Amino acid sequence: MKREAILLEALPYIKKFYNKIFVIKLGGSVIKNSKAKEAFIKDTVLLKYTGINPIVVHGGGTEISELMNRLGMKIEFKNGYRVTDKKTMEIVEMILVGKINKDIVLNLNLNGGKSIGLSGKDGNLFYSEKETKFGDIGSVGKIKKVNIDLINKILEDDYIPVVAPIGFDRNGVTYNINADIAASEIAKALKAEKLILMTDVDGVFKGKKLISSITVKEAYELIENGIVSGGMVPKLQCAISAIENSVKAVHIINANVEHSLLIEIFSDKGIGTIIKEEFE
Amino acid sequence: MKREAILLEALPYIKKFYNKIFVIKLGGSVIKNSKAKEAFIKDTVLLKYTGINPIVVHGGGTEISELMNRLGMKIEFKNGYRVTDKKTMEIVEMILVGKINKDIVLNLNLNGGKSIGLSGKDGNLFYSEKETKFGDIGSVGKIKKVNIDLINKILEDDYIPVVAPIGFDRNGVTYNINADIAASEIAKALKAEKLILMTDVDGVFKGKKLISSITVKEAYELIENGIVSGGMVPKLQCAISAIENSVKAVHIINANVEHSLLIEIFSDKGIGTIIKEEFE
Amino acid sequence: MKREAILLEALPYIKKFYNKIFVIKLGGSVIKNSKAKEAFIKDTVLLKYTGINPIVVHGGGTEISELMNRLGMKIEFKNGYRVTDKKTMEIVEMILVGKINKDIVLNLNLNGGKSIGLSGKDGNLFYSEKETKFGDIGSVGKIKKVNIDLINKILEDDYIPVVAPIGFDRNGVTYNINADIAASEIAKALKAEKLILMTDVDGVFKGKKLISSITVKEAYELIENGIVSGGMVPKLQCAISAIENSVKAVHIINANVEHSLLIEIFSDKGIGTIIKEEFE
Amino acid sequence: MKREAILLEALPYIKKFYNKIFVIKLGGSVIKNSKAKEAFIKDTVLLKYTGINPIVVHGGGTEISELMNRLGMKIEFKNGYRVTDKKTMEIVEMILVGKINKDIVLNLNLNGGKSIGLSGKDGNLFYSEKETKFGDIGSVGKIKKVNIDLINKILEDDYIPVVAPIGFDRNGVTYNINADIAASEIAKALKAEKLILMTDVDGVFKGKKLISSITVKEAYELIENGIVSGGMVPKLQCAISAIENSVKAVHIINANVEHSLLIEIFSDKGIGTIIKEEFE
Amino acid sequence: MKREAILLEALPYIKKFYNKIFVIKLGGSVIKNSKAKEAFIKDTVLLKYTGINPIVVHGGGTEISELMNRLGMKIEFKNGYRVTDKKTMEIVEMILVGKINKDIVLNLNLNGGKSIGLSGKDGNLFYSEKETKFGDIGSVGKIKKVNIDLINKILEDDYIPVVAPIGFDRNGVTYNINADIAASEIAKALKAEKLILMTDVDGVFKGKKLISSITVKEAYELIENGIVSGGMVPKLQCAISAIENSVKAVHIINANVEHSLLIEIFSDKGIGTIIKEEFE
Amino acid sequence: MKREAILLEALPYIKKFYNKIFVIKLGGSVIKNSKAKEAFIKDTVLLKYTGINPIVVHGGGTEISELMNRLGMKIEFKNGYRVTDKKTMEIVEMILVGKINKDIVLNLNLNGGKSIGLSGKDGNLFYSEKETKFGDIGSVGKIKKVNIDLINKILEDDYIPVVAPIGFDRNGVTYNINADIAASEIAKALKAEKLILMTDVDGVFKGKKLISSITVKEAYELIENGIVSGGMVPKLQCAISAIENSVKAVHIINANVEHSLLIEIFSDKGIGTIIKEEFE
Repeated sequence: MKREAILLEALPYIKKFYNKIFVIKLGGSVIKNSKAKEAFIKDTVLLKYTGINPIVVHGGGTEISELMNRLGMKIEFKNGYRVTDKKTMEIVEMILVGKINKDIVLNLNLNGGKSIGLSGKDGNLFYSEKETKFGDIGSVGKIKKVNIDLINKILEDDYIPVVAPIGFDRNGVTYNINADIAASEIAKALKAEKLILMTDVDGVFKGKKLISSITVKEAYELIENGIVSGGMVPKLQCAISAIENSVKAVHIINANVEHSLLIEIFSDKGIGTIIKEEFE
Repeated sequence: MKREAILLEALPYIKKFYNKIFVIKLGGSVIKNSKAKEAFIKDTVLLKYTGINPIVVHGGGTEISELMNRLGMKIEFKNGYRVTDKKTMEIVEMILVGKINKDIVLNLNLNGGKSIGLSGKDGNLFYSEKETKFGDIGSVGKIKKVNIDLINKILEDDYIPVVAPIGFDRNGVTYNINADIAASEIAKALKAEKLILMTDVDGVFKGKKLISSITVKEAYELIENGIVSGGMVPKLQCAISAIENSVKAVHIINANVEHSLLIEIFSDKGIGTIIKEEFE
Repeated sequence: MKREAILLEALPYIKKFYNKIFVIKLGGSVIKNSKAKEAFIKDTVLLKYTGINPIVVHGGGTEISELMNRLGMKIEFKNGYRVTDKKTMEIVEMILVGKINKDIVLNLNLNGGKSIGLSGKDGNLFYSEKETKFGDIGSVGKIKKVNIDLINKILEDDYIPVVAPIGFDRNGVTYNINADIAASEIAKALKAEKLILMTDVDGVFKGKKLISSITVKEAYELIENGIVSGGMVPKLQCAISAIENSVKAVHIINANVEHSLLIEIFSDKGIGTIIKEEFE
Repeated sequence: MKREAILLEALPYIKKFYNKIFVIKLGGSVIKNSKAKEAFIKDTVLLKYTGINPIVVHGGGTEISELMNRLGMKIEFKNGYRVTDKKTMEIVEMILVGKINKDIVLNLNLNGGKSIGLSGKDGNLFYSEKETKFGDIGSVGKIKKVNIDLINKILEDDYIPVVAPIGFDRNGVTYNINADIAASEIAKALKAEKLILMTDVDGVFKGKKLISSITVKEAYELIENGIVSGGMVPKLQCAISAIENSVKAVHIINANVEHSLLIEIFSDKGIGTIIKEEFE
Repeated sequence: MKREAILLEALPYIKKFYNKIFVIKLGGSVIKNSKAKEAFIKDTVLLKYTGINPIVVHGGGTEISELMNRLGMKIEFKNGYRVTDKKTMEIVEMILVGKINKDIVLNLNLNGGKSIGLSGKDGNLFYSEKETKFGDIGSVGKIKKVNIDLINKILEDDYIPVVAPIGFDRNGVTYNINADIAASEIAKALKAEKLILMTDVDGVFKGKKLISSITVKEAYELIENGIVSGGMVPKLQCAISAIENSVKAVHIINANVEHSLLIEIFSDKGIGTIIKEEFE
Repeated sequence: MKREAILLEALPYIKKFYNKIFVIKLGGSVIKNSKAKEAFIKDTVLLKYTGINPIVVHGGGTEISELMNRLGMKIEFKNGYRVTDKKTMEIVEMILVGKINKDIVLNLNLNGGKSIGLSGKDGNLFYSEKETKFGDIGSVGKIKKVNIDLINKILEDDYIPVVAPIGFDRNGVTYNINADIAASEIAKALKAEKLILMTDVDGVFKGKKLISSITVKEAYELIENGIVSGGMVPKLQCAISAIENSVKAVHIINANVEHSLLIEIFSDKGIGTIIKEEFE
């Protein structure tokens, strides 16, 4: 494809997305892949350059487990959630807020972005409560209210917010929040243009075939008919919830494919799976 | 070249040129080439989308001569300037302002731009006086002062100004202004980022070789040593004058190569000749 | 009448009309009367000085026919409209936009105003369609939508807009619009305080008697009872339509009476005919 | 003179004086002339309508003496200044601030103005000290500093300030200030366009001949040569001081000639005496 | 009580009352008590420092009677209202506006405040009509409309307005307004946070016992059951009317207790009587 | 002391400090004292209520050592600085940013403040370099440039910034910064009104006597003469540096005395030691 054709295809997106909010969830695994991380950092700064407002929400499971191992603590999961007692919660918060978050912030800054890291405690961002649907798994929380004041101010001042999925309640309890859900809740609260889930698979599959685009209705069917399963089910549920709450589109793409973010946004065909209310 | 590489190359220019002014001179001949004109219109609208402020200055010699022929008027040139008596001046103004200018405006509007056409009389844009360096060639004028108030307002309101090179003086005399010079004077008055001269050759040549980039010093030498000649000499003089008066770069490109404008701006190598104070 | 009495009568109008919009249609014939034109130019600049926002809409029939004669083109009218084939349309546009419009702009500027000329293509001002009520008379158009964004910006920036009655449609067709109607449509779209039709008669007559003021209801009756006829009928229809769409008053005055504009506006009795919804 | 000629003469002053400050001193005697007062009130409101910012400073000697007589107090003058002991000062303040000031305010308001009365104590307007050049004449004061903050705010909010010439010092002493001087000091502090002294004579006379205009230099000579004398001397001194401190023009006119204010401002010739640095 | 406890109690009120309006009525009697007046002036300036917007409304009965006595005028009261013929009205206005008002303004200014005095004529503050409920008692008036434009501007500019309770009507009649009522009407028009009536008793008493706080309902009962009587009845009626028209609280405190204003506002318990819709 | 006296003493400070910046350094030891911490949190929120802009900078040495002990890491100090290898740096950052910082933020929020936590990486706050004056002690850093953009925005938006003393350089190295120095550098960069060092002693002592106030000159002498020693020396040096760079006053107070912050700020005498350029 010729350069001018690629530009003619890409540039209209600049206008379409000008000043729009993209919430991008970066899975914990990609943070360990230095080439993918570097491409992600560069792409995010470029998005900002073109006038988009990216917000990064990150996970960090691998590193939490590593530190817990060093401290000889017991690691336990239940229904995909980390069982999080008070001691574990401290480790989760220190790794997410004190390590991974600041590492992303620093790298965005060093690559020409202007970034600030936030925990869900800053500016009362994630007012939460205990998640009890799988019984008592400790300080795992769900978000009751996203306080968007702070994030709006930060966006006005042209910073890229990087958010660690930590919640709190009025009694001062700290909560461990699932990063996909945190990203989805922010996207909903800000009526974001896009929620982009960057994960370690290429998108949603039907058998061995990657599905380029699905409607919300089709997404429900994929879940009900068991065509998707495992970790993709809660991701699709996040996507459905986002779109049903005024987010325009959700993308699921492979963070390990370098510059997948750029290609997904600035080409007509994209690279992963896009979920929308409906397509024209 | 892969899509992501082209994007990674192009997108940083979006930031670099954000809110910058580009004065683009469109030669009269390309207006008759409908494919090239269409590509030019599209490219200009895209520039606006990406946050650049394009200003178009146009010529129109061919159509002036056509109408003069229909009216049985005598056509005469001297040193490359049209000898312009009072009757001829009326024809020049009617064609430039009442035909070509509005045609460009209409096409920009129909392609998603928001454009407004200006003559040098509007808002006292081109306060001029008689050009006498080649003797008395009638109402040919040179610009004494560019009144940028109006153009600044129009840019603030996000319109694309399209300018016909017509001047006036305090006695109410109307002047015929060379379009390259008019473009250069606007670029200087607005301290534009770029002056782009879209003409019907590929750029500046040294023998048969296109020169990609030259400094002002080299441009002086090309003229002095007679390496460039004919119509390219006044173009280079416009370029030199622009750069010596705070315009950052001047480009000379071939308007007949479709999308030459886009390629010149959004790629590292460009397509025509770029003139700058100096290169890093 | 003593000076102080005239001032005491005139000055309250300054406050009453401060920052209000007056749309003034200047008939093509007065443009040829140099004394009347000069008085009109001075009065319009004075209106601007006193805080009123004048907008001038002009005709230009005489000069169009002259150029067509020079070019040996056939001139034809039908129901008062010029039959306008594509070639004629080009002449109409060149004369109105490239000659008369810029002549008024230049004269306003030279007399201390700050003026800008517009065609209905600039800023998508007059989105139009073919007028078919008298059969196919070519590119004669009627206005479907006045885009007031551009005119509002220009007024904010304290320019006097001078408008040539040229329309366009989405297919790029150019239209010839009646100047009275164009003025009335702008007045309606901007909810102007006044629409002033400057023509070559003293106002509306009942037999030999000039009528100083009439209500909309009386205007309907004058038309229905055949008391007015000829060119005054469409003028009264423009007036009625303006007032029924929130214009406060319409004036019909004689452009050939020097300073008729000033006297009409700044005296209690006026000089021509005023049409209003009703009078106190 | 014809109406249009008077308007063509008057209207350019509207622009010239738009948003300019006129400080108008109204002598105590005219306040007792009800026809003259009514004309003054109307003219002042009209000035405001046309965009001028009038500030009224008033005297009130006659009424002060009346109340003192009723109270059996002794009235004494020295060098044209009222000898003002503490008891007298209370009467002066009550009459100026509590009677005359509010009467003017009320009348301006009832005639369509938006007025507010001020004493020199309000907003620390007239910081003053004892006047000792004629020995000890009690609480007669001179102004050391005009605090223009309050008056500027009031003008921004489009009120007509009416000022009683009362001063104060840091020890809480109240002072009686000459109204001509108070008006001149305000005019100087605000760099007013005009200071207008409305008094009970037609202007400055040379023998029996009214002088229409004099320069500051001529004013000095009139005083030195004894051509003017009595109360006109301090008035001319106020005028000279005002012009030497950036006030553009001072007018001395007869308040008892109805609408003298309007005629003076809106005609080329004026009605009283105008003093300027120099005339073109 | 320890310093930190007093501060911990007082400081939260700073935030609670930040930028809120307090209308404070100062009775005429306290103006004669120099220690109490001095404390009142200091407290009012301190309120302004802490971010509260105080508005002072004052009486002045004693001094009015004194001047009337000096002039040998007859003094008469009816139902607590001064019978006010035209001559008396002049004295009332001169004392309130020309003496007491300016004395308070001057003292606030000398103590670091920034104050401006207003009569109800300034900016059409108190549009009034004759009070006839007790028969014809002359120019005693009641307020029909408070024009808050001027007071809002003055507050925006950070001045402390000091208001003399003088009214006017469209015929130019001046009215004598009860100061408690004037204060209450301003408080209602501005939806003030508090109306504070500073008088010469400690508050509302039930027998010999000071009542710290009462609801509007209880205030009605106190009046109906005759538990309060005399001058306290109209004060309670002012309080009730204020609260029923969106004023948050009314305080009745003793102006002769030095700094009663400060203690009432910045302590939990207060010092006088507080009236509210209801208490938590 | 009576309530009104305490208020009359405290309230003027409200005005004096309105909108001023106070940088408060909270030592790591007090964080473990829950009563003192609670009083500090309350006092800081109250400061914000009164219009002061507090910025908190915190330490955290004790908890860092605890985690290092749990991980079996070697703890070493040199000249009062923690020897900080790369592994230690990770622990320092996790504890300061991921634990202590968010604990203070959460407590400020739960007590009615609106707080946000920052590391020196956020918004490029602390651009740093290796500290080498005591040889190679690893990632101990000193601040080269404080980027105040972000902090200024946060203050404009009325948040209380809580800052963890972590630095970075252009190569992505993370640095451990002394908290006193970090606080001092922020105070200098923001031209703060006050720098308040809350520590575990009552202030500066001369023998057994607490010194209430000292000038910079005296502070130099105390150090040179060896009258102060140990940890107080670098604190005094921070104080001197702050005042020499336009901070108005530095306070050293005992964080363990409950509400020492409030007493120090809102009483004339204070409770600890104040250092200033000079005293009136």
